[in-house]
Amino acid sequence: MSHERIITLTTDFGYKDPFVGEMKGVILSINPSVTLVDITHAIEPHNIEEGAFIIGSSYKYFPSETIHITVVDPEVGSERRPIIVEADGHYFVGPDNGIFSYIMSFSEKLKVLHIKEEKYMLSEYSPTFQGRDIFAPVAAWLSRGIALESFGCTIDDFKRFEVPVPKVEGDKISGEIIYVDRFGNAITNIRKGTLQGLGEKYSVKIKGKIVRTVKNYAQASDKGLYCLINSSGHLEFFVNMDSASRLFNINKGEKVTVLRQ
Amino acid sequence: MSHERIITLTTDFGYKDPFVGEMKGVILSINPSVTLVDITHAIEPHNIEEGAFIIGSSYKYFPSETIHITVVDPEVGSERRPIIVEADGHYFVGPDNGIFSYIMSFSEKLKVLHIKEEKYMLSEYSPTFQGRDIFAPVAAWLSRGIALESFGCTIDDFKRFEVPVPKVEGDKISGEIIYVDRFGNAITNIRKGTLQGLGEKYSVKIKGKIVRTVKNYAQASDKGLYCLINSSGHLEFFVNMDSASRLFNINKGEKVTVLRQ
Amino acid sequence: MSHERIITLTTDFGYKDPFVGEMKGVILSINPSVTLVDITHAIEPHNIEEGAFIIGSSYKYFPSETIHITVVDPEVGSERRPIIVEADGHYFVGPDNGIFSYIMSFSEKLKVLHIKEEKYMLSEYSPTFQGRDIFAPVAAWLSRGIALESFGCTIDDFKRFEVPVPKVEGDKISGEIIYVDRFGNAITNIRKGTLQGLGEKYSVKIKGKIVRTVKNYAQASDKGLYCLINSSGHLEFFVNMDSASRLFNINKGEKVTVLRQ
Repeated sequence: MSHERIITLTTDFGYKDPFVGEMKGVILSINPSVTLVDITHAIEPHNIEEGAFIIGSSYKYFPSETIHITVVDPEVGSERRPIIVEADGHYFVGPDNGIFSYIMSFSEKLKVLHIKEEKYMLSEYSPTFQGRDIFAPVAAWLSRGIALESFGCTIDDFKRFEVPVPKVEGDKISGEIIYVDRFGNAITNIRKGTLQGLGEKYSVKIKGKIVRTVKNYAQASDKGLYCLINSSGHLEFFVNMDSASRLFNINKGEKVTVLRQ
Repeated sequence: MSHERIITLTTDFGYKDPFVGEMKGVILSINPSVTLVDITHAIEPHNIEEGAFIIGSSYKYFPSETIHITVVDPEVGSERRPIIVEADGHYFVGPDNGIFSYIMSFSEKLKVLHIKEEKYMLSEYSPTFQGRDIFAPVAAWLSRGIALESFGCTIDDFKRFEVPVPKVEGDKISGEIIYVDRFGNAITNIRKGTLQGLGEKYSVKIKGKIVRTVKNYAQASDKGLYCLINSSGHLEFFVNMDSASRLFNINKGEKVTVLRQ
Repeated sequence: MSHERIITLTTDFGYKDPFVGEMKGVILSINPSVTLVDITHAIEPHNIEEGAFIIGSSYKYFPSETIHITVVDPEVGSERRPIIVEADGHYFVGPDNGIFSYIMSFSEKLKVLHIKEEKYMLSEYSPTFQGRDIFAPVAAWLSRGIALESFGCTIDDFKRFEVPVPKVEGDKISGEIIYVDRFGNAITNIRKGTLQGLGEKYSVKIKGKIVRTVKNYAQASDKGLYCLINSSGHLEFFVNMDSASRLFNINKGEKVTVLRQ
């Protein structure tokens, strides 16, 4: 019997150490037929909000039934619980520390389980690496078709931080930068749907200046600051073929205003 | 029916963001049996020539019928076309911006298609991320055996830059550094075949000095600058267990001369 | 006939160049059914000891029969031999330069083969990239079930450096830092079993100061230096949610003392 499921991995473990490789070894020892996909291992160390944003944006490009291991876990080994979240037809395995806040916010039907069943964990487990010793084997057993209920009991008091939604007041949207990508593009928490509430024409302001709005990067005809709706549906600041973050000193937390014209 | 094809990915998307993971999610949603291989995602941002050199050197180590997605795409979302290239028994999917110039230069039989058929793209697609919304699904459908002609129409006016070939004049070859690798080895555009035209003995000059030629790295008995024919068949400058680029300030574009002795 | 084996890759090739991708292409050309797992490619260039420590810690999380290609190989192309090591139910393929020292030290039954059979190497091979031209194809043929003896002949004079074991004298253990991970945690060569020899209570000293011992990272209630037994069973120094290496200037080679209390 073949179990051809996908397990994705999103962590702050980086690419230098063997941590992710060890997790994959554990998974393949339990289910050799699984397909493993790295989403990223370069979440800023201990930055739960960044991890939450990344997995919240990316999971939906995978087929339903995919299992997403997500580990940014500064409290590993403490009383914080290991959990499985079932939402939107996907499964998420990780710590109960808010890492699944975006998923929980956007999902109507939500099931959260406290993982307790030790037979689905590594027999010798370390309090400092539950990614390898709890989350990896639990995800692997889940991918083999073990029923969700077998892993523990349903909980309602799971941790979930407020995702940074923009404030809408009349003709004004107030948002902020929540992520800067590899190219130096600065992504806001203002989504296409919210912008459309202002109608066809609006003006975007950051650092006290109005920024021109275009449809794609190549439309920016000079090295000035521009904005567009990006591939995850967020308003994003960019400089054509350069770093908006570096050139205009735009970092996480910077305030952004949009006004109806 | 199983579709056990290989799809490789070569991009400038880096390892921090979830872009590559999302592309893989899209591919596996269409063909769960495909084997995915990363060639690199660390092409210098927007450096089409570097991407072209990497995919042009690497594709041939994969079995024929492999599909290579290659995305360094500063003009994404503009009028530049998405294409499929069939060459040397392999398929290449990416933007029509010169990224396949090496492949086009070395290949005798070449077929290039402008991708037009929207049913093989994501239904909601973003003008800023065709890697995920066009190239990934097109490669996945291609891996499922959809005929090449179904994706669009053949074109002849595709973009292709001149690959930097060395100048051969009598007993002299004039070339240049085209790539510096992780170890600081500096790779020239002078290939083994061209060198052999000078016969058995030749002298190599860079930065006004003659450089000793050896067969492998360990033969360099001191920390001086040496050269050899490297694993991709190019003349390469190196320092044994150190960085030639850093120690001797050798970067991309640096001129190199080879003379018959 | 399907050959569903795992091949892992551990190298100092980095993530910028196409070297690892080319190795995977070679492997999949020989055995398309193999599952490939990267352990890390960020071993410090030419640092054989670091590579030896990483593969020596990580292999055991993979199922037995896994084949581990390990390449940190400054002497590539010289007289140093390519080898296969069979140990602890796993196979290891790489250079005979000490890279398998940890595995050899911990393993009771050990078989080491000098790879000689050219039909299992690439036909055109480069003296500078045996990872692609010898180790990758040998591992791939091994994964297809070719008998170990077919690749060459058994040897006894393989290279193996002394792994840095701590010195135990009465109530005192003298060890050292052998690895610093992505989070700045500093790992010693002192293992749980050795510590247990001192009984329940012991004090740990580094840089002339006693360091508090806890069970997990979250127990460190301030930004001071702490230690614990980490997930690979080693004594490790850390700062909660920060870098012990950077904040306390603790690097590889730093001396550590443990005393019975």
